[in-house]
Amino acid sequence: MYDAEAPARADTAFAPFDRLESRVRSYCRSFPAVFVRGSGAWLYDADGKAYLDFLSGCASLNYGHNHPALKQRLVEYIADDGVAHSLDMHSRAKAEFLEAFEAAILRPRGMFYRAQFTGPTGANAVEAALKLARKITGRTNVIAFTNGFHGVTLGALAATGSGGHRASGGLPAQGVSRAAYDGYYGPDVDTAAQLDKLLSDPSGGIDPPAAILVETVQGEGGLNVASAEWLRAIEAIARKHGALFIIDDIQAGCGRAGGFFSFEDMGVTPDIVTMAKSLSGLGLPMALTLIRPERDVWHPGQHNGTFRGNCHAFVTAKAAIDTFWRDDAFAERTAAKGERLRARLEEIAGKHPDVVRGTKGRGMMRGIDVGSGEVSGRIVKAAFERGLVIETSGPRDEIVKVLAPLTIADEDLDRGLDILSAAIADIRGRVQLNAA
Amino acid sequence: MYDAEAPARADTAFAPFDRLESRVRSYCRSFPAVFVRGSGAWLYDADGKAYLDFLSGCASLNYGHNHPALKQRLVEYIADDGVAHSLDMHSRAKAEFLEAFEAAILRPRGMFYRAQFTGPTGANAVEAALKLARKITGRTNVIAFTNGFHGVTLGALAATGSGGHRASGGLPAQGVSRAAYDGYYGPDVDTAAQLDKLLSDPSGGIDPPAAILVETVQGEGGLNVASAEWLRAIEAIARKHGALFIIDDIQAGCGRAGGFFSFEDMGVTPDIVTMAKSLSGLGLPMALTLIRPERDVWHPGQHNGTFRGNCHAFVTAKAAIDTFWRDDAFAERTAAKGERLRARLEEIAGKHPDVVRGTKGRGMMRGIDVGSGEVSGRIVKAAFERGLVIETSGPRDEIVKVLAPLTIADEDLDRGLDILSAAIADIRGRVQLNAA
Amino acid sequence: MYDAEAPARADTAFAPFDRLESRVRSYCRSFPAVFVRGSGAWLYDADGKAYLDFLSGCASLNYGHNHPALKQRLVEYIADDGVAHSLDMHSRAKAEFLEAFEAAILRPRGMFYRAQFTGPTGANAVEAALKLARKITGRTNVIAFTNGFHGVTLGALAATGSGGHRASGGLPAQGVSRAAYDGYYGPDVDTAAQLDKLLSDPSGGIDPPAAILVETVQGEGGLNVASAEWLRAIEAIARKHGALFIIDDIQAGCGRAGGFFSFEDMGVTPDIVTMAKSLSGLGLPMALTLIRPERDVWHPGQHNGTFRGNCHAFVTAKAAIDTFWRDDAFAERTAAKGERLRARLEEIAGKHPDVVRGTKGRGMMRGIDVGSGEVSGRIVKAAFERGLVIETSGPRDEIVKVLAPLTIADEDLDRGLDILSAAIADIRGRVQLNAA
Amino acid sequence: MYDAEAPARADTAFAPFDRLESRVRSYCRSFPAVFVRGSGAWLYDADGKAYLDFLSGCASLNYGHNHPALKQRLVEYIADDGVAHSLDMHSRAKAEFLEAFEAAILRPRGMFYRAQFTGPTGANAVEAALKLARKITGRTNVIAFTNGFHGVTLGALAATGSGGHRASGGLPAQGVSRAAYDGYYGPDVDTAAQLDKLLSDPSGGIDPPAAILVETVQGEGGLNVASAEWLRAIEAIARKHGALFIIDDIQAGCGRAGGFFSFEDMGVTPDIVTMAKSLSGLGLPMALTLIRPERDVWHPGQHNGTFRGNCHAFVTAKAAIDTFWRDDAFAERTAAKGERLRARLEEIAGKHPDVVRGTKGRGMMRGIDVGSGEVSGRIVKAAFERGLVIETSGPRDEIVKVLAPLTIADEDLDRGLDILSAAIADIRGRVQLNAA
Repeated sequence: MYDAEAPARADTAFAPFDRLESRVRSYCRSFPAVFVRGSGAWLYDADGKAYLDFLSGCASLNYGHNHPALKQRLVEYIADDGVAHSLDMHSRAKAEFLEAFEAAILRPRGMFYRAQFTGPTGANAVEAALKLARKITGRTNVIAFTNGFHGVTLGALAATGSGGHRASGGLPAQGVSRAAYDGYYGPDVDTAAQLDKLLSDPSGGIDPPAAILVETVQGEGGLNVASAEWLRAIEAIARKHGALFIIDDIQAGCGRAGGFFSFEDMGVTPDIVTMAKSLSGLGLPMALTLIRPERDVWHPGQHNGTFRGNCHAFVTAKAAIDTFWRDDAFAERTAAKGERLRARLEEIAGKHPDVVRGTKGRGMMRGIDVGSGEVSGRIVKAAFERGLVIETSGPRDEIVKVLAPLTIADEDLDRGLDILSAAIADIRGRVQLNAA
Repeated sequence: MYDAEAPARADTAFAPFDRLESRVRSYCRSFPAVFVRGSGAWLYDADGKAYLDFLSGCASLNYGHNHPALKQRLVEYIADDGVAHSLDMHSRAKAEFLEAFEAAILRPRGMFYRAQFTGPTGANAVEAALKLARKITGRTNVIAFTNGFHGVTLGALAATGSGGHRASGGLPAQGVSRAAYDGYYGPDVDTAAQLDKLLSDPSGGIDPPAAILVETVQGEGGLNVASAEWLRAIEAIARKHGALFIIDDIQAGCGRAGGFFSFEDMGVTPDIVTMAKSLSGLGLPMALTLIRPERDVWHPGQHNGTFRGNCHAFVTAKAAIDTFWRDDAFAERTAAKGERLRARLEEIAGKHPDVVRGTKGRGMMRGIDVGSGEVSGRIVKAAFERGLVIETSGPRDEIVKVLAPLTIADEDLDRGLDILSAAIADIRGRVQLNAA
Repeated sequence: MYDAEAPARADTAFAPFDRLESRVRSYCRSFPAVFVRGSGAWLYDADGKAYLDFLSGCASLNYGHNHPALKQRLVEYIADDGVAHSLDMHSRAKAEFLEAFEAAILRPRGMFYRAQFTGPTGANAVEAALKLARKITGRTNVIAFTNGFHGVTLGALAATGSGGHRASGGLPAQGVSRAAYDGYYGPDVDTAAQLDKLLSDPSGGIDPPAAILVETVQGEGGLNVASAEWLRAIEAIARKHGALFIIDDIQAGCGRAGGFFSFEDMGVTPDIVTMAKSLSGLGLPMALTLIRPERDVWHPGQHNGTFRGNCHAFVTAKAAIDTFWRDDAFAERTAAKGERLRARLEEIAGKHPDVVRGTKGRGMMRGIDVGSGEVSGRIVKAAFERGLVIETSGPRDEIVKVLAPLTIADEDLDRGLDILSAAIADIRGRVQLNAA
Repeated sequence: MYDAEAPARADTAFAPFDRLESRVRSYCRSFPAVFVRGSGAWLYDADGKAYLDFLSGCASLNYGHNHPALKQRLVEYIADDGVAHSLDMHSRAKAEFLEAFEAAILRPRGMFYRAQFTGPTGANAVEAALKLARKITGRTNVIAFTNGFHGVTLGALAATGSGGHRASGGLPAQGVSRAAYDGYYGPDVDTAAQLDKLLSDPSGGIDPPAAILVETVQGEGGLNVASAEWLRAIEAIARKHGALFIIDDIQAGCGRAGGFFSFEDMGVTPDIVTMAKSLSGLGLPMALTLIRPERDVWHPGQHNGTFRGNCHAFVTAKAAIDTFWRDDAFAERTAAKGERLRARLEEIAGKHPDVVRGTKGRGMMRGIDVGSGEVSGRIVKAAFERGLVIETSGPRDEIVKVLAPLTIADEDLDRGLDILSAAIADIRGRVQLNAA
C-alpha cells in the first residue's frame, strides 16, 4: 500500500511495521524479531524465543526488564487508581520520589540539588539545562565536546557531535562551540589546557560560554572515558570563565558507570546534572534536571511540557531507589560485575587480535573496538542469530557496546560474552579485517 | 537549607516540593493540594477530598483518569511481563497499536499516513515534523501563527508565540516567520490572503517556507478557532509556495475538538500531523508524527530518542481506540456534550456580563473570556476552593478554559459549570471588572 | 581561458570585462558602452557618444557628474598633498565637514546628531545602526519592511526584502521580523496598527524589537512612498515598545526626495539615520550613521573599518554642503523640478495607457509602473539605444525609475523624458502588454 | 551641547570631533593632532608639525601618502571629467585596471582569477567570499582561526576572533567554527593535523565547511606568521573536505608581507583571495574578491553595492601597478627593507630585554611583543610625543606594530625605529615591566 519496503515481508509479523511505521525506525532493523515479554536480562519474542539483552534500552533498563519489586509497586499503584498524569501539580507519587531521592541519593553524598521535572526525555532535560545556563549568564555560547551525544531536539542537537544527526536538523546548529574531549588528540595533548587557552584569549574567537556540557563517559560517542583529573580541570575552566558546569549523566548515571552518579568521588560539583534513561527503573519515560539551589532561578512555568508528571515513573523510580540505593551493596556488586566485564572483554580481545583493537569504557559501560562499522555490524548480526541483543556506538559504529543490566547474573553475563566471542569467530573470512 | 520559599510550608505536605523541586513548577501553584488518586472526572487529594477535573492534564486525559478498560489492559500487560521499554525495536504492543490505528482511525477516514514514534512529548513530535519539512524542501523557514503553541524545546519554541517562553530560550528564535491567525486582525481582514501576498512577493522579505504549521484550535493561545475555509486557504498557500502543510493536533486531537482528528470533514489533507497528549488514553507519555507516505523520506535513525518505544502507552492507546473509536458513538456523544458545554457557557456569560466578555472554542475545548489574567486567576482560585480544577489560557491568561474529560457525565459537567458560575459570583467586588 | 562568455566579444572594448571580471557584474549588462567621462547629467563613452544619465549612480550623483565646484576643491586638496586616508584619526578635512554639516544641515533643522563615520558603504552604515540598537536595548530582533532594501552584507541583508539577495546569503537571515509597509495590503489596511497589535500581544510571537528600520521612500523596493502620518505612527510604535526608530535615508536623502533629509517636516525624530550615496557629492565612497547624542553609547573602536576616513569624500561633501545647502534655494528648485517630473510622468502615463499602469514616488525619485520586468527591460534597452541611461526597480523590476541629477537643466530633463516616451512607443508590438 | 567629553577641549582644534563625532572613534584618541597633509612617510598637522607614519593607514598606504605618480594621474583624471562613480557599469578606468592587473600581477605569477569588485571595504570582500563559498557548496559552516581579523559587518564578524568586536555584533555569531592557527598551542602541536582529525570524524561535531578562511600573517591578531608548510596542509584539508580555500590578503597583500600576494611561492592556490587596503595605492576605498574562474558561479547582481565602481581608485590602482609592479625591483627593495627592519627590531629587543619579549612578523609587517597593552600603550604615547605615529595589535594589544610605507627611505625607517627605541627607554620606571 505504501512503498517498496512493504511487499517483501507482507505476510510476516513485520508487516504492520513495514506498512505503517516511518522509515526512520532503526534499531528494529538490527533485530528481526517482535518482542513480547521481558524479564531481567531476557527478552522473549512472539514465538517464545529468548534473547539475552546486552542493550538494555540503551542503558534505560539498568535493573533489567520488569524487576519484580518495581513492577509490583506499579501494579498496586495503578490498581488503586493512583494518579497517572499530573502535569506539574503536587502528587503523592512525586513527593515520595523526591523524599527518597533526597534521603538515599543526595544526602549520603553530601549533595544539594533541586529537581526540575522536564518533559520525559533526556533531550528535554538537556534543553532545560542549556536554557537555564543561558538565562543565568546572559550568554549564548555553550562548550560541548567531540563525540558528545545529548539528544536531537534542536537545542540539544547543536551540542551533539554526530554529523548525521546534525545534518538532519535542517537549520545550522547555533550556540555551541566544540572542544576536544579528554584524550581526543592522543594521550600527549592536554585538551583541557587547550580549551583554557582558547577561552582566555581575548581574540580566541570563542564567545564566553554560558556552560560547559560534558559526559563522563561518552556512551554514543564510543565509550570514551574522561579522567577525574580532566573533569576537575574542565570544572575549573568553567568557574574561571564564568560558565556553568553541566554533567550529562543520562547514560552513564543510575549506576551504569560507577555510583548512582558517574562522577561521584571525582571531586567535581556540577551546577546542573541531567538524568533520564534508567531513572524510572522500569524504562518508563522520565527525565530530571538537577540544579544547584543557588542556580535555580527559573520563573514558574518558564520551561514546561505536558508529561512532566508521569507518576507511574515516579512510583517505579522510588521503588528503584528503595530496592537498590538504600545502602552500598548494589553499587559494590555492580563494581565487581564491571570488573568481571572488563576482564572478560580483555580476554576476548586477546583471543581475537585480528578483529578487536582494544577495549573501552568504565564500570558496566564497556565495549570492544573492532575498527569499523562494517565489522561491528556483522558481529551484531551474528550475535543476534545466536540469541544476543547487542549494539554498536562510536563515530563510525566501530565499538561493540555491552550495556547489560547491572542486575545480570554472572552466568548470564558470561553466557552473553561467550556469544559475543563466538559471533566474532563467526565473521572471520566474511569481512576485511584489520590485520595486514 | 535551600531558599526563602521553603520555611513557609515546612511542616505541611507541601514541604518536599518547596524544599526539593525547582521554582519552575507552575500548575501546582494554582492548586494547593497533593493529589493521590484519580478516577474518571475526579481527582482525590491526600485527605480524600474530591475535585472535579476540568483541566484533564491539559487535554491529556480526554477519557478521564484511569479508565477501567485501559487500566485493566495495562495491569494485565505489566503482570504478564510485557516489554515496557523497547527503543524502536519491534514489539507486539506497537504492532497492535499500529493495526488498530490503521483499522479504526485511518482507514475509515480514507487517510494514509505513516507513524513516526518520536520522543514521547508533543514538542518532540513537532521538532521531528519541522526537521522533515526542512529536509524535504531544503528550506529553513517555517510559517507559524500568532498565539500558536508548539512546545518549548528550541526547535519547537521558535514556532511558539508566547513571549515568556521565547524569552526563556536564551537564543534568538531561528527559522520561523510569524503570520496572523484566522481572525487575528478582526473579521474583516483576510489573513490568509495577506500571507499569500507576502509569500508571492519576490521582495516580500519572507524566505520561502519549508512548512506552514497550524493548530485548528489554539488551546494555549486562547481557544481561537480557525474556520475550515481559512484552513483550506492555508493549505492551498502551502501547496502554491512549495511548503508542507502541517497540522499540530496535539491538544485539539483525540476527540477534543470534534472527530479523532480536529480537521476531519474540513477538506484538508495535511502532509504531517503531530499528535501527543491524549493519544495513550491514560495520560502516559506518547507522541506521534504522522507523515504522508510520499513524504516519509527519513533515513533510518535520523531522528531518534530513548523513549520512543513506551509500550505501556501503546497498550493503553490501543485500548483507547478499541473502547472509543471502533464506531461513531463516542464521537457523537462528545459532539452532543460539546454542544451542552457551549450552551451552558453562553448561559454563564449571559448571567455575568460584567465579568464575561464572551465564549470561545469548539467541541469540548471551550472557555470564557474574562478580559484579564487577574480576573481569571481569581476565578481559578475561587473555583478550586469550591472543588474544581480549572485553568486559563490566552496571551494574557484571560480565557478560563474548560477541558473536562470527554467521558464526563452530564451531571458532573453541570456540577463543574455551576461551580464555575459560583466562582465568578464569588469574585465580584474583589476585582476591577470590565464594565465601566 | 575562462568561460563561454568571453569569446563572443573578444575583439571589442568589452573584452577585458568579459575575460577578467566576475559574472556577478550586472548594471553593465544593461548598458553596452564603456564610459569615460561624465559632466552634469551627461555621460560619454569611449567613442565620445553622449548619454543622458537618469540613473545617477543609483542616486549617488544627485549633483551630477563632476560638479565643477566640488571637483575644483578636490583637485586643489590633492594637489596640496591633503591627507587622503586617515583611518579615524583627526583630519582637517573631517573637521571642516563636521562643522559644515552642523552649521548648514543640523542646526537650521533643529536637529542634534552625532556622526559615526562607518566603512564607506550604505550597508556598513546600516550594520552599525543595527549593532548599536541591539547594544542599547539588549534585544536582537529588528523590524524591517516588505520591499525594504538596506544592503547585502549579512547583517543588513537580513533586513533587505529581496528574495534573490536573501537567498545568496548562504545562511538563514537572522534577527529580523518583517512587517508590511505603508499601503502594502491596499489603502484600507492600516499596517501600522497591525504591527502595533502584533507587538502588543504577549503571544504575538514577535520578539520585542531593538529597532524599527524604515525608508521613507523605498527606492529599490519600487518607489513606494510612506505617508508622514504612517511614519509618525511607526515612530510611536517604536517608542511604545522600547525600540529605536531608524530611518535609512541612504537613497532618499541628500535632497532626492525632498529636503536634505527625506523626513524633514514629517514630525518624526529618528534615533538613528543612515546616510551614504550622494553624501560625498561627487560619488565618492562615504557613509554616515547619525546618532542622537543620548544614544551614542559606543565604546571606542567597537565598530571599525579601514576606510572610515576617506578625506577626499569629506572635502567634496563639505563642498556640496557649501554649494547647495547654505540656503533654501536648491531645495526649492529641486521641489519644482520634482513637480515638473511628476507632471511629465503622468503625461507619459496618459499617453501610453496600454503600457504604463501608473506613476510612483516622491520628489525627484519617481517612476512609472509598467507591470512587469520584461516590459521594463525592453524599455530600458530601447531608451539606451536612444541615448538614455535609466534603470528599473520593484520586486519584479516593474518600475522604470527616473533618478536624474537634481541639478539637471529642465530641457535635459524633458529631453530624457521624451526619450523615455519614445522608448515606450518603440516596444509596442514587441511585448505582451497589459491591456486585454 | 552633547556630552561630558566636549567641554574639556572646547576651545581647541579637537572641539568639532568632541562635539560632533560619535564616541566610537578610536585611533584619534592615540594621536592628539589634526592631520592636514601627507607625503611619503610623513604626516603634517595643522601647525605644520611633521610625524613619521609607521601606521600607514593600517597598511592601506604601502606606497606612502600621495605618491606623486599616483597623484598626478588622479588629478589629470579628475581634471578631464573622468567618471568618478560608475556602479558596476563598464568604465575605461576599470578596463585599464583589469588589464594592468592581468598583465603585471596575474600573468607573471601564472595565476588565473576573476575580479569581483565588491563594496569598497575589506569586510565586504570577505562577505562576498563567504557567500560564494556557501553558494557553491550548499554548506553554511566556515572555518576561521584564532586571532583572525576579517572585518566587522555581521558575516565577516563571525569569522573575526576579537571578543570585543564579536560582543558588539548584538547577535550570536553564526556559521563559523574556530580552529587554532599555526603555532597557537606552541611549536609542538600540529594544529593542521588537529583540524583534519576533527573534520574527518563523523561525530567530531564540526559541520562540513564551505570554506577555510585564513590570513598568512595575522595583522590585527598580533603579527602571527603561518608557515608555508602549514598553509599547504590547510589547503589540502580544504580540498579533502570539499571546502573552498580562501586567503584573506587584505592586510598582508600588496607587497606588505612579501610579493604582491603574501602567499606567492608558498605552493598554494586559493580558490578565493580577498584584497583591499593598499590596493588603490593612494588609500582610496577599493576592495576586490579574486575568484578562480571555475568558482565564479555568481548570478548577475547576486552581491551588489553602490560604490563598487570607484573609478578614482581604479585609476590610482592602475598607476600603482605601473609604478611598482611591472618588474621585480620594488619587491626586491621591499624584501631588503623588511630584512633591515627585522635586524633593527631584534637590535631594539636586545637593547630592552626588560620590555621587549621578542619580535614577530614577516616582510615589512613586523613588530615587537611588549607583553601587555598597558606597556604598549605607553610606548605609543611616548613615540607620538617624539613624532612617530605607531600602533599596536594582538589580542591584548601587546604587540607594537611597524607598518611603515614600503617606499620609506632607509634613513626615515631608521629614524622611526630610533624614536621607537627612545620611547621604550622613556617608559622605564613608569610601568610595571615584565622582568621579575
